[in-house]
Amino acid sequence: MTKTAVLAFSGGLDTSVCVPLLRDDDHYGYDKVIGVTVDVGQPEEDMQEAYDREHILDEHRVIDATEEFVEELVFPLVKANGSYEGYPMGTSIARPIIARHCLRVAEEVGADALAHGCTGKGNDQLRFEAVWRAGDFEIIAPMREMNLTREWEMEYAEEHGLDVEATEEEPWSIDSNIWSRSVEGGEMENPANEPPEAVFEWTQSPDDAPEGGETVEIEFEEGVPVALDGESMEGVELIETLNETAGEHGVGRNDMMEDRVLGLKVREVYEHPAATVLLKAHADLESLVFSRSQIKFKQTVENQWSDLAYAGLVDEPLFDDLNAFVDSSQEVVTGKVRVKLHKGTARVVGRESENALYSEEMVSFDTGGVTDDIDQTDAVGFAKYHGIQGRMRKGQKDDK
Amino acid sequence: MTKTAVLAFSGGLDTSVCVPLLRDDDHYGYDKVIGVTVDVGQPEEDMQEAYDREHILDEHRVIDATEEFVEELVFPLVKANGSYEGYPMGTSIARPIIARHCLRVAEEVGADALAHGCTGKGNDQLRFEAVWRAGDFEIIAPMREMNLTREWEMEYAEEHGLDVEATEEEPWSIDSNIWSRSVEGGEMENPANEPPEAVFEWTQSPDDAPEGGETVEIEFEEGVPVALDGESMEGVELIETLNETAGEHGVGRNDMMEDRVLGLKVREVYEHPAATVLLKAHADLESLVFSRSQIKFKQTVENQWSDLAYAGLVDEPLFDDLNAFVDSSQEVVTGKVRVKLHKGTARVVGRESENALYSEEMVSFDTGGVTDDIDQTDAVGFAKYHGIQGRMRKGQKDDK
Amino acid sequence: MTKTAVLAFSGGLDTSVCVPLLRDDDHYGYDKVIGVTVDVGQPEEDMQEAYDREHILDEHRVIDATEEFVEELVFPLVKANGSYEGYPMGTSIARPIIARHCLRVAEEVGADALAHGCTGKGNDQLRFEAVWRAGDFEIIAPMREMNLTREWEMEYAEEHGLDVEATEEEPWSIDSNIWSRSVEGGEMENPANEPPEAVFEWTQSPDDAPEGGETVEIEFEEGVPVALDGESMEGVELIETLNETAGEHGVGRNDMMEDRVLGLKVREVYEHPAATVLLKAHADLESLVFSRSQIKFKQTVENQWSDLAYAGLVDEPLFDDLNAFVDSSQEVVTGKVRVKLHKGTARVVGRESENALYSEEMVSFDTGGVTDDIDQTDAVGFAKYHGIQGRMRKGQKDDK
Amino acid sequence: MTKTAVLAFSGGLDTSVCVPLLRDDDHYGYDKVIGVTVDVGQPEEDMQEAYDREHILDEHRVIDATEEFVEELVFPLVKANGSYEGYPMGTSIARPIIARHCLRVAEEVGADALAHGCTGKGNDQLRFEAVWRAGDFEIIAPMREMNLTREWEMEYAEEHGLDVEATEEEPWSIDSNIWSRSVEGGEMENPANEPPEAVFEWTQSPDDAPEGGETVEIEFEEGVPVALDGESMEGVELIETLNETAGEHGVGRNDMMEDRVLGLKVREVYEHPAATVLLKAHADLESLVFSRSQIKFKQTVENQWSDLAYAGLVDEPLFDDLNAFVDSSQEVVTGKVRVKLHKGTARVVGRESENALYSEEMVSFDTGGVTDDIDQTDAVGFAKYHGIQGRMRKGQKDDK
Repeated sequence: MTKTAVLAFSGGLDTSVCVPLLRDDDHYGYDKVIGVTVDVGQPEEDMQEAYDREHILDEHRVIDATEEFVEELVFPLVKANGSYEGYPMGTSIARPIIARHCLRVAEEVGADALAHGCTGKGNDQLRFEAVWRAGDFEIIAPMREMNLTREWEMEYAEEHGLDVEATEEEPWSIDSNIWSRSVEGGEMENPANEPPEAVFEWTQSPDDAPEGGETVEIEFEEGVPVALDGESMEGVELIETLNETAGEHGVGRNDMMEDRVLGLKVREVYEHPAATVLLKAHADLESLVFSRSQIKFKQTVENQWSDLAYAGLVDEPLFDDLNAFVDSSQEVVTGKVRVKLHKGTARVVGRESENALYSEEMVSFDTGGVTDDIDQTDAVGFAKYHGIQGRMRKGQKDDK
Repeated sequence: MTKTAVLAFSGGLDTSVCVPLLRDDDHYGYDKVIGVTVDVGQPEEDMQEAYDREHILDEHRVIDATEEFVEELVFPLVKANGSYEGYPMGTSIARPIIARHCLRVAEEVGADALAHGCTGKGNDQLRFEAVWRAGDFEIIAPMREMNLTREWEMEYAEEHGLDVEATEEEPWSIDSNIWSRSVEGGEMENPANEPPEAVFEWTQSPDDAPEGGETVEIEFEEGVPVALDGESMEGVELIETLNETAGEHGVGRNDMMEDRVLGLKVREVYEHPAATVLLKAHADLESLVFSRSQIKFKQTVENQWSDLAYAGLVDEPLFDDLNAFVDSSQEVVTGKVRVKLHKGTARVVGRESENALYSEEMVSFDTGGVTDDIDQTDAVGFAKYHGIQGRMRKGQKDDK
Repeated sequence: MTKTAVLAFSGGLDTSVCVPLLRDDDHYGYDKVIGVTVDVGQPEEDMQEAYDREHILDEHRVIDATEEFVEELVFPLVKANGSYEGYPMGTSIARPIIARHCLRVAEEVGADALAHGCTGKGNDQLRFEAVWRAGDFEIIAPMREMNLTREWEMEYAEEHGLDVEATEEEPWSIDSNIWSRSVEGGEMENPANEPPEAVFEWTQSPDDAPEGGETVEIEFEEGVPVALDGESMEGVELIETLNETAGEHGVGRNDMMEDRVLGLKVREVYEHPAATVLLKAHADLESLVFSRSQIKFKQTVENQWSDLAYAGLVDEPLFDDLNAFVDSSQEVVTGKVRVKLHKGTARVVGRESENALYSEEMVSFDTGGVTDDIDQTDAVGFAKYHGIQGRMRKGQKDDK
Repeated sequence: MTKTAVLAFSGGLDTSVCVPLLRDDDHYGYDKVIGVTVDVGQPEEDMQEAYDREHILDEHRVIDATEEFVEELVFPLVKANGSYEGYPMGTSIARPIIARHCLRVAEEVGADALAHGCTGKGNDQLRFEAVWRAGDFEIIAPMREMNLTREWEMEYAEEHGLDVEATEEEPWSIDSNIWSRSVEGGEMENPANEPPEAVFEWTQSPDDAPEGGETVEIEFEEGVPVALDGESMEGVELIETLNETAGEHGVGRNDMMEDRVLGLKVREVYEHPAATVLLKAHADLESLVFSRSQIKFKQTVENQWSDLAYAGLVDEPLFDDLNAFVDSSQEVVTGKVRVKLHKGTARVVGRESENALYSEEMVSFDTGGVTDDIDQTDAVGFAKYHGIQGRMRKGQKDDK
């Protein structure tokens, strides 16, 4: 019987070291290692890294899931104004997509095990396994199970004929896909240290961004961005274009302390130009077409959506219920928003929608009444009840 | 018997017109009108406007409440990360302070009525009266009760000897105090129109802000900002200095649709340089010293705090309870945050605190274990339970 | 031109007095008054009261909306575990149904006005008008507008030939429909007074309820009760039967302080046998089939749903979004619940569902492991991370 | 060097078996086992069980912490209306008290390890260790680590001279303290099975409860119950008395599906007469003295409080913040509540407080106005704004 392991494979040091480890009879003793590389819009050099190392695998499967990623998780995130402590969760929501494809390959080939190269400190192990453990496979995580350090990995790689030279020592750890780029580690592990300008690759420094800036117009249909500057675009193209444009204007940097699921904090630096613009524009459009009650309650929904998404819990039944709420709310989120990109800033400067719950006459200084039905004196009654219980309490206190 | 009215007096057209109206026997018929002008850090020209028109009053009282405003509402707002749909509520939280002082004057002089110049469409009428209606005074709001238009007011003013020339027609309506400056009306009543650059007075355009930017360090003690760039400062000075500095760097512009308490939306443009910086810095420091549960739950508290503050309901009993929560949480919010101000952007680039719930070793890539007690393999058990109910449900669905 | 008013008509003193008032040229001066009586399952004697007085109307329309009421609001309430401070909102959710039918009649006959007999202190005026003000009709509320007292009404009624004798003085005010019966006023206006046994009509005293009690089985399909004790039933019949059965066993009494929308508290006594049983059974079934995250978050949804329903805001856009959430969650709420009715108590004593997220083996004392995949030792890792941030904080405090 | 283990000791089979296991060189190899039994108000026979087996320990420490339990966790729970999915959390909140005392003993004697007899499936392991892991002790949980079954334990016990006969086979598992009694296991592991009457020890069957029932009056001061039927009582006595009285009347049974922290559901049956009465009375008093905003928001606080308490996370920093909120709110929760205990029901029938936000005149049918300041017509203005955004949206939809 051939024992087969399916490995989520990026071609970096960790997942490369997993290959001989999985085969090694002193360790896992698998006969065959199939690497699965899922394209979720990461830069070409990242994909190239996987191709460069594919020769160490018994089989390499490359799956383009960028469109699936955008349709199934990125745009739902936009509709939900998804954000975890301020981070648009690019890495978080890509993991379930990658994990599902690995699981499908494992089912298809009748594999015995699923393996990843995540450590035991981070979130990705949890996100992968939240999906994988629904199947009947052994789950293998060598970095975690063996408490490996980088030194040990380098040595083991060399012993097993991996071209370690090719794995240049990077001062920090990077993860990218179409929705965001994250940087952690190195000197940034001290939260007091300013990230060096060199960590930023997608965004210009404000100084280098063009004078005068640029205004982009995003058009939404039921909460989904469908056109940029008047031109209809599929999601992938729209995000890529906007990453380019907003990045040139320096938009989309983020520096934060983040609470991992396990309870450890980590300092993260992110770049996500398109995410910044789309999320701002989307929320602004909602503020035009939503009732106040919708705006307020949807915040609660959004926080819960984001907690689940961050943790990779897209199969939690609640996630479906939250999406049903969000989709219901989005029926009116159709319209155009203009965002000025300027030296690192992204500011909404105009918005319009046929569903606007807004009327110039109702608020204008130049008209006496509010509507045909309501004139200003009607506010007197409202004012008398406004805060009435607070005044009753205050009266009681003053009496004492 | 002399009938006396106490009027919240700014010296602008509305409150000036109120004076003859209050005296006018065809209208309110009061014998004496005492104007109260409360200084909450508005610009000198605003205060000057009140002095210029004080001659029309029977008596003018000017009360400096800037420090009171900062201590009793601005800093509690910072501690609560207060924000209403993205707006730091400068106007909202100043109104209770102004209203209280008017009420005290009315009590002191034994007045019969309290009057304001607010319309019946906005929030300020509600904020004033939430405080005033605790007393036993007639409440008078001529603009609201008489459904007045600007044209009528101009004519009436002229008839009653007010120097209308002095009230130059402004294209938009402005309200300022130490915490924010708001602009509404004019062409901005159409939410699709970009605000002209001329509406901004406190903030530079990103293009004109200095190259290279500037990093400021805010020091907090129990949630309150106490020093700027290493120099201890009282609240008023700290905010004024930071408004200046951050404004020069173009930080603090805001353009939004806002839901008024009555249910009408309005388009508002705000400037609040210091507020932007302090709120970012404060929230970032919390992310370093708070547990994840605190961060998450405090959002809910913050939203509720902000709703009450926006509505002027500072006497609502719940407001005290929320502040008790906030104050308890702030005991550990002591430390320093560095914010880079650059061409309109304000980005936290470093933070430190003796109360940080963070440890470099726990998250480092270079150490195997997490703590003495926890090594990476411990995450296996956690991972197995992570999302277990979602997988049970998924299994049931797959079986069908 | 004939001026026509459509009046929500119950035949009680208030709505009867409205008829001559609406015609009276000294008051409203309408030519024609059409009374609309909507049957939402109130007792026959209530309906009879409307028939007895219909002769004073120009036209009387009686509309049976009981099934509509149950399908469109009562069962959605069950799915949402709807409750306002503990009250299943029978009166609240009936009002939009009644209001809609009045509005349709007004549109159909081309009326000029819509009228109700509610006072200016309660909730019903707000619930009616939340629906009515969407149309283009004058809204008339004589009791509110004229600040009427009961004495004045009695006298006016007599003057206008209403048979006042027929309107016997009731010591308290009652409102009933299929979902609940409410009693307020009289001696119960003092919250310290125990309601006399005589206020209860639908429920036995515990002493008089049968010894031994009775167990009923409710079957739910996607959150909706579809069978009672194994017998399929339409909603109306099921509720009526259960009101009977549970009432006999003394189940469904409620005595509470309730916060009206305007901010006034009122003491209310309710009876709602079927509601008590169905809501208990439904929530219990959810606890069997929901994930913990669903249970927890749905509470928040339920509270918001109930606030809107209580205020009559069923046209608020958020209400649709909340229902979308609820409906998504209900897909698995299929199963049977047995409730023991006994001397005033209703206690769930058994529940079953094919969608149960429960497995006897997983929790049993007699098996070592949890699932094939998880054994007890896996909890060690979970335990180490459980509360880790709290311990870090505690450690810091202890060090000081 | 003597190796010492401190064991949380109840004298039942599990903790008794731990003693030889901890000494056994084939297993843990400790030299000395100190048993700590903490009295949190459990019945005398439970305490006796510990005394009966104390001879197998090297040392037995018995600590009476009932008063501490009541003051530090039970009454805070009452103030927070604490409830986890309907359960007043007697077991949950006792664990931190027990754990703290074990930890103190371990620190005092300089022990090497802390041990408990909990399995790896339940909550108690997590609650103990949330406290213990703050210290520097080895944590030992033999049942969990060795995946023990009851059979193995019985055999091992016999081999090691424990009098197994004394450990009579109980059909279900019970945990009791002053605040509640829980029963799980046996035939109740099937959630469809009705619990046999024999599982109930603290509460009469409704049939056997006295005819006519009994009304008790609870007096609260700042949220804490201080007197029963007019007689001042310390907390412990008050709860014990009320357990007796309410139990006689059959009050306090609970049958539920409960979600354990790890994600497993379990069927639990509870008895808690005093808890049922006190929690009802307390919440009712709040409904008299709280503003609507307080009632509503406190629900959110209560849910979060309960989640932490259930999980044993009393050292989570958020727990302190929540208690600060609760304590602030309780300042006005002073007054008397009368609860009728009758055949298993507990219904509030009267309440009074000098802080009531209630006024008979304001709501009475017999007075025209609401307050001096407000008459019924003032509600017109309120009504016009009530639901205005919903009507705007509806109008847009109807236009389409």
